[in-house]
Amino acid sequence: MSYLLNTWYIAGWADELAPRAMLGRTIVEQPMVFFRDSRGAIQALADRCPHRFAPLHMGTIVGDSIQCPYHGLRFDGSGQCTHNPHGEGNIPKAACVRGFAVVERHGAIWVWLGERHLASDALIPDFSFFEQAPTHAKGHGYLPTRAHYELLSDNIMDLSHVDFLHPDTLGGGALSRTRAAVEELANDRVRISWWAADDVPPPAFGAHLEDPSRADVWAEVIWHAPGLMLLGSGATAPGRPREEGPVTWNLHLMTPQDATNTHYFFANTRSFEQDNAQLNAFVQDMLIGIFAGEDKPMVEAQQRQIGEVDLLGLNPVLLPVDAGAVRCRRVLRRLIETERAATHANPSSSFGKEVLR
Amino acid sequence: MSYLLNTWYIAGWADELAPRAMLGRTIVEQPMVFFRDSRGAIQALADRCPHRFAPLHMGTIVGDSIQCPYHGLRFDGSGQCTHNPHGEGNIPKAACVRGFAVVERHGAIWVWLGERHLASDALIPDFSFFEQAPTHAKGHGYLPTRAHYELLSDNIMDLSHVDFLHPDTLGGGALSRTRAAVEELANDRVRISWWAADDVPPPAFGAHLEDPSRADVWAEVIWHAPGLMLLGSGATAPGRPREEGPVTWNLHLMTPQDATNTHYFFANTRSFEQDNAQLNAFVQDMLIGIFAGEDKPMVEAQQRQIGEVDLLGLNPVLLPVDAGAVRCRRVLRRLIETERAATHANPSSSFGKEVLR
Amino acid sequence: MSYLLNTWYIAGWADELAPRAMLGRTIVEQPMVFFRDSRGAIQALADRCPHRFAPLHMGTIVGDSIQCPYHGLRFDGSGQCTHNPHGEGNIPKAACVRGFAVVERHGAIWVWLGERHLASDALIPDFSFFEQAPTHAKGHGYLPTRAHYELLSDNIMDLSHVDFLHPDTLGGGALSRTRAAVEELANDRVRISWWAADDVPPPAFGAHLEDPSRADVWAEVIWHAPGLMLLGSGATAPGRPREEGPVTWNLHLMTPQDATNTHYFFANTRSFEQDNAQLNAFVQDMLIGIFAGEDKPMVEAQQRQIGEVDLLGLNPVLLPVDAGAVRCRRVLRRLIETERAATHANPSSSFGKEVLR
Repeated sequence: MSYLLNTWYIAGWADELAPRAMLGRTIVEQPMVFFRDSRGAIQALADRCPHRFAPLHMGTIVGDSIQCPYHGLRFDGSGQCTHNPHGEGNIPKAACVRGFAVVERHGAIWVWLGERHLASDALIPDFSFFEQAPTHAKGHGYLPTRAHYELLSDNIMDLSHVDFLHPDTLGGGALSRTRAAVEELANDRVRISWWAADDVPPPAFGAHLEDPSRADVWAEVIWHAPGLMLLGSGATAPGRPREEGPVTWNLHLMTPQDATNTHYFFANTRSFEQDNAQLNAFVQDMLIGIFAGEDKPMVEAQQRQIGEVDLLGLNPVLLPVDAGAVRCRRVLRRLIETERAATHANPSSSFGKEVLR
Repeated sequence: MSYLLNTWYIAGWADELAPRAMLGRTIVEQPMVFFRDSRGAIQALADRCPHRFAPLHMGTIVGDSIQCPYHGLRFDGSGQCTHNPHGEGNIPKAACVRGFAVVERHGAIWVWLGERHLASDALIPDFSFFEQAPTHAKGHGYLPTRAHYELLSDNIMDLSHVDFLHPDTLGGGALSRTRAAVEELANDRVRISWWAADDVPPPAFGAHLEDPSRADVWAEVIWHAPGLMLLGSGATAPGRPREEGPVTWNLHLMTPQDATNTHYFFANTRSFEQDNAQLNAFVQDMLIGIFAGEDKPMVEAQQRQIGEVDLLGLNPVLLPVDAGAVRCRRVLRRLIETERAATHANPSSSFGKEVLR
Repeated sequence: MSYLLNTWYIAGWADELAPRAMLGRTIVEQPMVFFRDSRGAIQALADRCPHRFAPLHMGTIVGDSIQCPYHGLRFDGSGQCTHNPHGEGNIPKAACVRGFAVVERHGAIWVWLGERHLASDALIPDFSFFEQAPTHAKGHGYLPTRAHYELLSDNIMDLSHVDFLHPDTLGGGALSRTRAAVEELANDRVRISWWAADDVPPPAFGAHLEDPSRADVWAEVIWHAPGLMLLGSGATAPGRPREEGPVTWNLHLMTPQDATNTHYFFANTRSFEQDNAQLNAFVQDMLIGIFAGEDKPMVEAQQRQIGEVDLLGLNPVLLPVDAGAVRCRRVLRRLIETERAATHANPSSSFGKEVLR
């Protein structure tokens, strides 16, 4: 299994990590521990003490270090050993763990597993709309899913599925009756967009339209390699600008745990009834019900049928609706191959070995 | 793992498939979906949409087709795509799934995984006695079992085990005190039969004899390759014809799911107190208790000890009681080898590839 | 995976085996059944009938034999078939199972998997102190653990861990503040000992000292290959002989089930308040809480991080506290290699093949 490494992965929501707390999570096959230091800054380390390989996330935080639960060695956020209770003050040179670049932004924890000097936080997509949305007009969640992350990305890149998998909520038939437009954008992004004029709005939007029976229905997804997706959707009175109708902007953020497990993070905001706390709670419940009860079982069933091989290698019948998903898969392959080639061209780099041990 | 393919396998009991319902079940490693069309006829398809490999059994029935749960493609009982909501009316030529010959007979669903032109329903054994038995003199059930199907066949082909594994119900000692006769019959069948004169009847028959302490005890099993068994047993007053005493005719039907899992279907009828609904309920409860509580744990324990190798390759100590089981294993090996040889001799046939992908 | 075979392994506590009862347990990958014969003597057999490979521990005891649950063959404690209900009195020569030397001593069941003529019970360590301890001053238990047995031995051979893993009960800081002495003893044993003068006693001992704030704190472990450990520990007023303070002698007995599972048996005695049944119950509860709630999760987490490779092959950072554990690992490697060389030098021996089939 190969992954893109010189990229920012979402490791969790920032509120999963309370002050002085730790979070153990495996990202692209690398067990990691995340913790907040005394200033509240998030630190990320390989989750394995170099002494006896105890998981550090089972330990405790002492000052700005994690203390290993088993024999008490301490490591700061850079991975240096800061205390050895057994060596009469000596700290063995090899007593260190790998530290990772980590950034807290847009309510999420972003981690970089590749070459550290490339880890510029300017490369993090601007998802500030989520932080800026009013309290009662947004929500977010996490759903560990037993499927390859590209199956989850495919799911978002082909929204025609909502008409069949979510017919009573998100689907209304409009998206599968129109042909989506796909375009590659700068910075390894792909956009897919739908515009169904004078069609049937999905139930979730119909309730917020003057005439719930007809609308211009639209959606668009911008995919950022390797698995971050910004999804906008809405419905507006026929012929009117889309801003006039109800609009939602959502995030679907896929982080590979390993070849068959994905950390699926999602977030949503809405443009209407932004102070309605009761509606907000209803929306959050509805969405988690849909994702956990309809999408997750479907992609997990796909995964079981496919096994650990590449979907496209199985010669699926491709339909026009697959254009966006296939484009993303091709961009991602190209990026991974380019990265691997660069690593091989520079054999003095410890890059590959270092990361996925 | 190799299986006999040009043969009828039991996929389920017909009453497992309500009108307009679906049943997903894996037969010899092939995931299949069974459904009833608008006329009530059973159809069988590979359980995998050719588009994104979603399991069709998670979908819905629309007319005479299954609609894929994920993107709405529909397939009829032949496997042809009858509707593509995304192609502006076009149906890609490759958008089809494999259909299988399937027959509803004797209360069961019979499916053929091999070459379709050989799938004559004249090859289905005549188990009509089961349909014809009075309502309160019969029962049937299903027991998924974590063991190779030949271990389950062995269990029925050597009924001496009842004296040790089921001493308080089906066993009485008689069957293990007499030597069984084994003979090969036409059409790849093997018969094993026991006749213990003036011996102790099993408790289950004793209650229906004038003298419950002594009887001629008999049993016979006719095995049909690869795993269908008709089992008769009874007890009669010493020297009297067997029809004078209580008689039961039973079916033990083993369908391989894969190398270590079997769909075990069983059915029973009896000749006595045929209108006694209470006795019938008692018999069904007793049998499921015996099969689920005594036979299943035993063959599953055997499977764990043996692992995924052939039993006979481990040099078991063979006893005279194994004669029937070993004969069946040899017939089945011969049939599988003959079938494989025929397939290899005709390389233009897509037979092997097509079936077990 | 290679194991030492010419050695006594603990198969269980003697009280796990009631009169006429059976115990099935896998020792160094060999499924075994233990039972008491009519005189109460423990017998040990391979847990697999040679006929159909049924597990004998699912059977019944008849006289001094186990009767196979499936077809009724019987085997005595030597493994000879004593009864075949199917052969008209004949017992096939091959109808036998392997019997093992087994001894009941010190409240435990000891079994020998290697060459039987070497199985002298003089090689069993003298743990008679455990039998001789008063009823209310001792306890014992069993904890199946998903980890390699050497990880469990390491845990005992480096008691500095108590200060970090059990800080509120067994640890007080003293053991990790002093340097342990390690010495190799006769008969493939290793001793490690700690003596911390005028230091902080662990809470568990403090309550039994006149001045609970200061004490000479000591501990020692004698490891017997491959995984039997006698652990003494205590605390005494500064400068006084250790017998004056509270003392505990404990057993930590590790028997490999397979490469990643260990049968962990433990026992303890104490020198103080030997008639205090309430204290005794409290101590047993505390210890099982510590072992099950702190040690077991830690070594199981280590195992998951390490996988099925040798710890030392992963280049851990070694600290002075590892000296005892590393010494034991080296002695054990040497013993296993010597044993394997002897087996290879004598190819007529069926030793290796016979044991681990």
